[in-house]
Amino acid sequence: MDKPYRPKITRATRPLTTEVEAVNERGEALPTPIAGEHPLTLYVDKREVVTLMTLGQCPEALAIGYLRNQRLVRSIEEIAAVQVDWETEAAVVTTRKQIKRLKEKMKKRTVTTGCGQGTVFGDLMEEIDTIRLRDDVALTEETLYAVLDAVRKHETVYKSAGAVHGCALFDGPEIVYFIEDVGRHNAVDAIAGQMWLDRVDGSDKIFYTTGRLTSEMVIKAAQMRIPFLVSRSGLTQMGHRIAAQVGITMLGRAVGKHYLLFTGNHRFVKTVTQTMLA
Amino acid sequence: MDKPYRPKITRATRPLTTEVEAVNERGEALPTPIAGEHPLTLYVDKREVVTLMTLGQCPEALAIGYLRNQRLVRSIEEIAAVQVDWETEAAVVTTRKQIKRLKEKMKKRTVTTGCGQGTVFGDLMEEIDTIRLRDDVALTEETLYAVLDAVRKHETVYKSAGAVHGCALFDGPEIVYFIEDVGRHNAVDAIAGQMWLDRVDGSDKIFYTTGRLTSEMVIKAAQMRIPFLVSRSGLTQMGHRIAAQVGITMLGRAVGKHYLLFTGNHRFVKTVTQTMLA
Repeated sequence: MDKPYRPKITRATRPLTTEVEAVNERGEALPTPIAGEHPLTLYVDKREVVTLMTLGQCPEALAIGYLRNQRLVRSIEEIAAVQVDWETEAAVVTTRKQIKRLKEKMKKRTVTTGCGQGTVFGDLMEEIDTIRLRDDVALTEETLYAVLDAVRKHETVYKSAGAVHGCALFDGPEIVYFIEDVGRHNAVDAIAGQMWLDRVDGSDKIFYTTGRLTSEMVIKAAQMRIPFLVSRSGLTQMGHRIAAQVGITMLGRAVGKHYLLFTGNHRFVKTVTQTMLA
Repeated sequence: MDKPYRPKITRATRPLTTEVEAVNERGEALPTPIAGEHPLTLYVDKREVVTLMTLGQCPEALAIGYLRNQRLVRSIEEIAAVQVDWETEAAVVTTRKQIKRLKEKMKKRTVTTGCGQGTVFGDLMEEIDTIRLRDDVALTEETLYAVLDAVRKHETVYKSAGAVHGCALFDGPEIVYFIEDVGRHNAVDAIAGQMWLDRVDGSDKIFYTTGRLTSEMVIKAAQMRIPFLVSRSGLTQMGHRIAAQVGITMLGRAVGKHYLLFTGNHRFVKTVTQTMLA
């Protein structure tokens, strides 16, 4: 069997944390780890597209996922190479066939977002209406707790330095990816890019995020055809409305053995306990 | 004395929270408050500028502050009126003299950000070099603790529904504004807008945020000439670098009686305790 196509990419991960000195309330000067934040300007076929501020954990996947989630690129086959160079703070994407109407598509990119002023919106709401998520898959409470336990045990930049958000893709209780970034949007985009690179199908996976479930987060999960969306945090009204509309199984405030199931209850299987039967 | 000029504005605050039903781990269906999130498209002299996703607490101040922080408008005198209409999800800004080169200026608006993919960057870094913050003002540890205490006691959407960030402007230990929004960027922009509306000078004020201290947050505080920046959260490498460059007094992890002082130590006055003298 032929190996599936894969673009040529660099692997230019940056050091994720550095140390600075801070003085605490006891007057002690302490070396304090802080998260990286670096500008990365994305060029597609020599045209400047956007400057992202990123932790730099998976810059190539971020570039690919950004183009995927902004609908500037329709499949991984369109991408020939991604070269990230931190000297020039550039992610240079070359396509196999020049993207048609790139300028026009970029114009449509609206600056919106749950995090205040973010990215994509444009035609996404229309697209949402066409999305059908699989209904022949289920998330058991046991798997949910295993996911939350895996997240808790995972070594993260957040634990040492804070100031980042993490997103993870789970296949049942197993972590497929765990990516952190200064922004929720970058972390989810990087996962989308990595899924394309590795030909990972989202239709039976679980998406976990430490961030809030805003409209954009729900839209992006749905676009990746992921039926399960789990967050440690809360949600917004529009995140809830879109989740209900697309029928995604969405859980918030999920920590330890606690959670709130908001939408898509039909895919969630609760463990029936003795107390409940009694 | 003439009253200072003030544009005509609506006061179209939205209900900040709504309730949805969620099922918890005990199988109980609970009414759960969630934060609002609404698209608001900003038009300037009939030209569409941006769509922001907002809680809708101070939409007029948000519109003004967005234009201020994006450097699309140079003074409040340029703005004739701001009309927010939630039926059409529009914030309509009319200027007194049409903004010169609006189209060109909008082009320069780079989609960047600490929160992943946000807003403004462009020439901001150059501007930062020209900013001088006042050095004849001080923040005492006592005032800091009073600020943190006031934040703790303040009734917030965050306390009831989560999923929002809060920003506050303090004059000494007194809250001048406390604004929440789905994004840190919106909350800081709304404060910038309100400061213009009320002719509040930032040069001796304290800016508090629940959010992380990324590059953009530091830049915006510096642009408002605010010398003190306090956050409950951590910071990023670039936030730290810019804070050091501009000499802002920046404190992170500030909760209760704890804090970390990162930069601009010369404006911070620690209370000397008996233990320290001993």
